[in-house]
Amino acid sequence: MTRSLLFRTEDLSDYIIQFFVRHDISPKDARTAAEILLAADLRGVDSHGIIRLDTYYGTRLRKGLIDPHARLEVVRETATTLALDGGSGLGQIVGYTAMQRCIEKARQSGIAMVTVRNSNHYGIAGYYAMMALPEDMIGVSFTNAQPLVAPTYGRKAMLGTNPIAVAVPAGGERPYVLDMATSIVPIGRITVYDKAGKAIPEGWGIDHEGKITTDPKQVLNGGALMPLGGIDLMRGYKGYSLALLVDIFSGVLAGSAFGTDVAQPSTNEPARVGHFFAAMRIDAFRPLEEFKQDMDVLIRMMKNSPRAVDQERIYIAGEKEFEMAERRRTQGIPLLETVVESLKASGQLVGLPFDLDVQGVVEN
Amino acid sequence: MTRSLLFRTEDLSDYIIQFFVRHDISPKDARTAAEILLAADLRGVDSHGIIRLDTYYGTRLRKGLIDPHARLEVVRETATTLALDGGSGLGQIVGYTAMQRCIEKARQSGIAMVTVRNSNHYGIAGYYAMMALPEDMIGVSFTNAQPLVAPTYGRKAMLGTNPIAVAVPAGGERPYVLDMATSIVPIGRITVYDKAGKAIPEGWGIDHEGKITTDPKQVLNGGALMPLGGIDLMRGYKGYSLALLVDIFSGVLAGSAFGTDVAQPSTNEPARVGHFFAAMRIDAFRPLEEFKQDMDVLIRMMKNSPRAVDQERIYIAGEKEFEMAERRRTQGIPLLETVVESLKASGQLVGLPFDLDVQGVVEN
Repeated sequence: MTRSLLFRTEDLSDYIIQFFVRHDISPKDARTAAEILLAADLRGVDSHGIIRLDTYYGTRLRKGLIDPHARLEVVRETATTLALDGGSGLGQIVGYTAMQRCIEKARQSGIAMVTVRNSNHYGIAGYYAMMALPEDMIGVSFTNAQPLVAPTYGRKAMLGTNPIAVAVPAGGERPYVLDMATSIVPIGRITVYDKAGKAIPEGWGIDHEGKITTDPKQVLNGGALMPLGGIDLMRGYKGYSLALLVDIFSGVLAGSAFGTDVAQPSTNEPARVGHFFAAMRIDAFRPLEEFKQDMDVLIRMMKNSPRAVDQERIYIAGEKEFEMAERRRTQGIPLLETVVESLKASGQLVGLPFDLDVQGVVEN
Repeated sequence: MTRSLLFRTEDLSDYIIQFFVRHDISPKDARTAAEILLAADLRGVDSHGIIRLDTYYGTRLRKGLIDPHARLEVVRETATTLALDGGSGLGQIVGYTAMQRCIEKARQSGIAMVTVRNSNHYGIAGYYAMMALPEDMIGVSFTNAQPLVAPTYGRKAMLGTNPIAVAVPAGGERPYVLDMATSIVPIGRITVYDKAGKAIPEGWGIDHEGKITTDPKQVLNGGALMPLGGIDLMRGYKGYSLALLVDIFSGVLAGSAFGTDVAQPSTNEPARVGHFFAAMRIDAFRPLEEFKQDMDVLIRMMKNSPRAVDQERIYIAGEKEFEMAERRRTQGIPLLETVVESLKASGQLVGLPFDLDVQGVVEN
């Protein structure tokens, strides 16, 4: 049994902005970073939200591993492509700026792609893909990350949970928003089971010998996550190959670190995370309104298709997250008491007490 | 126990070319189609090769559902994008021509994307992605297909096995070539178990109620394939969402059929299959030689990483298929006796006896 406290989004946002400003981030950049971080909490991707405020960002800013004043440098540019160097800046600012540039270029050229080297953990991949939606474009965002996933037939964590995010506008229906790790589950999921003293489902992870284990500690200590698909019989090499693909686009094509050279956020090395972004104008291919109508038809076709026994609803990628965000915006964002404690501790380090109004308590 | 007969690639190629020419395909187009069809057999993707010569192509040509003289029409064109109408042409010719156009545009613009509507089954997606390799480009190819896969929590086949293919050049190492169905296995795999009277592994497919079944007949008769990932606990909604993504790019963006509106090849309707292609110049992002060197480093990093107990080798996407193609090019392509019989039957229909030299016999 765990307890969570509910906080208003605006209060958390103000706190995060002040926290970043105390770390020498400009108020404008701090607002952007806070919005992206809270987008994770709102959408229910708690592992990529405020829980990481100090471990992924604050600590690394204080160590000088994230440069609060980094300016993106152009490494190479064509009418349709742009290769940027993030200068070890805050991942959210680097990612936001890079996707903005990508959208600007796509506005001119129909389609555009942007790579980024030397960045840091940028939060949820989906945020950047979704930036394309109000522009009536399809948005794509990949990033590599610290190694946590073993290749099929391997036993060592060699690849990040390297997410694939794609956002596609629809008409009357909500947009399609895919934001998926290429592992079965993120590492945070394993930690949750470990803290609860529970066994993990068979297939999520392996031990240090590469054998499937249901003991979360074996996965966390020298083991690895399984790629989407799981074991060979269930075609886990597809998930492994997708993780590798994301590393090729985000790491190799960007000229950034890749594979085991992407640093763990807890180390004292520059992370050298790489990102990849794409934006596509829909009207470069067909009239926008026709496209949106057909998106609605496809979405409804799936949602109204016959359900399996005992199932109540068929979803479209992103749908659960949109509904979660609506709920949390009104009811508040729940933070585990342990998370609140760690926010208080990290706040003290920079003289910023975490003393926001608690809107309610949730028992899980 | 099944027996396969071995045939020389050249002999099979000559036969396929003549078969297509008898169906009023021009000799030049017939050569292209034969090469793409045999690329599947060579690479070990037998389900997409000569086995489909009559069911997917010959029959539909004779019924007038595939137009042997189709010309691709430009629906919309910009410097970087092209939307084509395949005019119900042979999928391989439509796909080949579209990817050629995509590569030409990418040569000029750095990156390019091409959609195609009103096409037919185009064989293996990987072939078109690989066309980018000699150009030092990354190639991408998606296609939708007749519905065989159920959405997560659904029970009806609503989406094709909608493949994702991406080819990336390397230096001294073989290129990375992903060519994956977004279902766990293709339908042909279920048929193989059915014919052998064997149970399928738990998780590959569901019955008409949406329940997981190990009976291949239940999957084939009113059931459906499971998307990559399988059940919800193993995050099968990611595979479902990837299948939907491919349908959005190949069907909706192209203005072609999508979802259950893509016709089964056995019907008397135009298939209205849609494709999506992309090509990216590597040197638009970074110097080609640096990229290739880093690809080699990444590939070797994976292949030389510690293996799980009892495992002998770690692979890169496409590696097994390259090795299979080398073996089959020298030893011959094995065709099941039942396949040879059906080739003889379809050959008779067009006065073209299938009487090629048998190079050997393989017992499976």
